[in-house]
Amino acid sequence: MQQKTTYTADYFINGILQKDRIIFSKAITLIESTKPSDELLAEEIIQACLQTKKTSKRIAITGAPGAGKSTFINAFGKLLLDSNNSVAVLAIDPTSSISKGSILGDKTRMEDLISNENCFIRPTASSTTLGGVARKTRETIVLCEAFGFDYILVETVGVGQSETLVKNMTDLFLLLLLPNSGDELQGIKRGIMEMADIVLINKSEKENEALAKIAATQVKHALHLFSANEKNWTTQVLNISSLQNIGLDKLQETIDSYFLLIETSGFITHKRQQQQLKWLDESIILQIQDKINNDGKIRAMKSELENKVKTNEIDANKAAKLLVEKIFGKD
Amino acid sequence: MQQKTTYTADYFINGILQKDRIIFSKAITLIESTKPSDELLAEEIIQACLQTKKTSKRIAITGAPGAGKSTFINAFGKLLLDSNNSVAVLAIDPTSSISKGSILGDKTRMEDLISNENCFIRPTASSTTLGGVARKTRETIVLCEAFGFDYILVETVGVGQSETLVKNMTDLFLLLLLPNSGDELQGIKRGIMEMADIVLINKSEKENEALAKIAATQVKHALHLFSANEKNWTTQVLNISSLQNIGLDKLQETIDSYFLLIETSGFITHKRQQQQLKWLDESIILQIQDKINNDGKIRAMKSELENKVKTNEIDANKAAKLLVEKIFGKD
Repeated sequence: MQQKTTYTADYFINGILQKDRIIFSKAITLIESTKPSDELLAEEIIQACLQTKKTSKRIAITGAPGAGKSTFINAFGKLLLDSNNSVAVLAIDPTSSISKGSILGDKTRMEDLISNENCFIRPTASSTTLGGVARKTRETIVLCEAFGFDYILVETVGVGQSETLVKNMTDLFLLLLLPNSGDELQGIKRGIMEMADIVLINKSEKENEALAKIAATQVKHALHLFSANEKNWTTQVLNISSLQNIGLDKLQETIDSYFLLIETSGFITHKRQQQQLKWLDESIILQIQDKINNDGKIRAMKSELENKVKTNEIDANKAAKLLVEKIFGKD
Repeated sequence: MQQKTTYTADYFINGILQKDRIIFSKAITLIESTKPSDELLAEEIIQACLQTKKTSKRIAITGAPGAGKSTFINAFGKLLLDSNNSVAVLAIDPTSSISKGSILGDKTRMEDLISNENCFIRPTASSTTLGGVARKTRETIVLCEAFGFDYILVETVGVGQSETLVKNMTDLFLLLLLPNSGDELQGIKRGIMEMADIVLINKSEKENEALAKIAATQVKHALHLFSANEKNWTTQVLNISSLQNIGLDKLQETIDSYFLLIETSGFITHKRQQQQLKWLDESIILQIQDKINNDGKIRAMKSELENKVKTNEIDANKAAKLLVEKIFGKD
C-alpha cells in the first residue's frame, strides 16, 4: 500500500493563489474534514486566505422547494460566465445533515455550469449540526475569495433557520417565488421576505405573463409593509424566466446597481465587519458548548445538574451558576 | 432616617406559604432587584419555593397589538375567579426593556381583576435584556406556584422572539386574532401560529358573526397545513367576544380538556422537564456571556480579538478558539 503524502499549508496556499483547481478542491475537502490534525492545517490555510483580502460578490439564493432554484442558478450562472466572470456555487441545506442528501445533488439542472472551467460547484458541507454546516460554508467562501472567484452564489432552501445563517455570510439576498403568489407567500416565512434585497418571480414564462404580473404586484404590496432598511436600498421585484431567459439581463443590471450602491456608501465594508463580529460571538458559544460536552469533568457535573433541574431539586439559573463558576475556576 | 430592616429568606418563604400577599409582593420585588446581595437572597427563596412542588396551570396569551388581550384577560380572568380560582397575571414585553413601558400598564382594562383579592397582577419585569426579562418572569412563576395560584396567565405581544420564551415557561399557548383574518394573519408570524394550542377569534361580537366565522374557517384551513404535534392535541379555533361574554364557557371547557389530556398522558411532566433543561442551557450561555463581559482580562482580550476579526487579521473561528481556551485555562 502506498503511503499517504502529507501536504503542508504552503502547498495549499500557493496552489490556491496560483488558481490550481485540484489543490483548491483538496483544500476544501480538508476544511470539511473532522480529523483534529486536518483542523489545524485548515486553520492555517483559512488564516492565509483571509490575508489576501480578496473579495467576491456574495449572493444568497433562496426559495421554497419547487421555486426553481437550480434551474435559475444554471441560467444566471451561465449569464455571468458569458460575461467573463468566474462563479462558485455553494449550498447550505439544513436537512442534509440528517438525510446526507444535498440540494445541489441534482446537478443535471446545472448542465451549463458543470463543464465550465470558470465555474466551481460544491454541494452542502456535511456536518452533524447546522452550526457546523454554516461554519464550513463560511470557510469555503474564504477559500473561494482567495482563489479569486468574481461571484459566489450560496443556495439555500427557504424554509427556516438556514436563511439567517446565509444572510450573515453574503452581501445580497435573492428570493425566488412562483407566480401563484397567494399560496406561495404562505410557504415563505415572513422573516425571509424581510431579508430579501431582490425578489424574483420565477417561471414568469410568456404563457404565465398575466399571473406573473399579478404576483409581482402582490409581492410589492407585501414588501411595502416593511420599513426602509439601513442601506437605503428598496427591495426590487422582478419577473424572470430561467427557461425562456426572460428578465435575466435586467436582474444583472439590478445586481450591479445594488453593489455599486453598497460599495460607494461603504455599507459593504460595514456589513462584512458586522458579519465577522456576529460569527465571533456565535463561534464562542458553539465552542464553549463543545468544551462542555468534551470535558469529562464538566460534562459529568452538567449531567448531574440536569437530573436535579428536571426534578426541581435545583433551579436552572442556580445550576447554571454552579457550572459556569466551575468553568471559570473562580468566585 | 429609619434604618432599613433586613429580612431573611425564611421570612419570605414562610410568608409565601402562608399566603401573605404583602410578603409575596416584596419577594417578587426582590427577585427583580439587580443588587448582588438581593440576588443571593432571591436564589434562596426560589430554591425553597421549587421544593414545594406545587404547580399552577400556566397559560400564555399572545396576539398582535389591538387584538384585545387586556380586555380578554379581564373577561377570562373574571370567569376563573367566579369559579373560585385564584389567578396571577404576568407579562413579558420585549419592548419594555427599552421604553420602560409595560403591556399591563393599562390596568383600566382589567377593572374586574384589579380589586379582586384572589387575583395578582404584575407588569413586565424590567431588565436591560429580553433574556433578563424572561428569567425574572420565570422566577416570578415559581413564586406564584408556591403561593398556590390555580392559574398563571402570561401576556405577551405576538410580534417576535418573546413568544418562544413564554412558550418555554407555560403549558398552554393561546393566540388571539381579530375577525379580519386575511390581513391579521399577515401580522402574526407563521411560527407563532404553529405554537398555538388554542386560537381565539376575538371580537366575534354578534354584529360581526359572519366575518368572524369566515375568519375561523380561514385559520382552521391555515392550521391544517401544520403536522400533528407530539401531544396528540389538535389546535382548536374558537370564536369569542370578551365584551359580550360569548364563547368563554366553551373556552374554559376546551382548556379543561387540554389539561386533562396532557396530565393523563404525562405530557405535562415531560414538557416541564424539557423546559427546565432548556432554561439550564440558556442560563449557561447567558451567564458565560456575563462572565466574559464582567471579567476585565477576558473582556480586554475579546475586544482586541474583535478588532482583528473586523479587519480580517484573524478568522472568527480561530479568534473564538483563543478566547475559549483562555476561559477554560487549558489546552
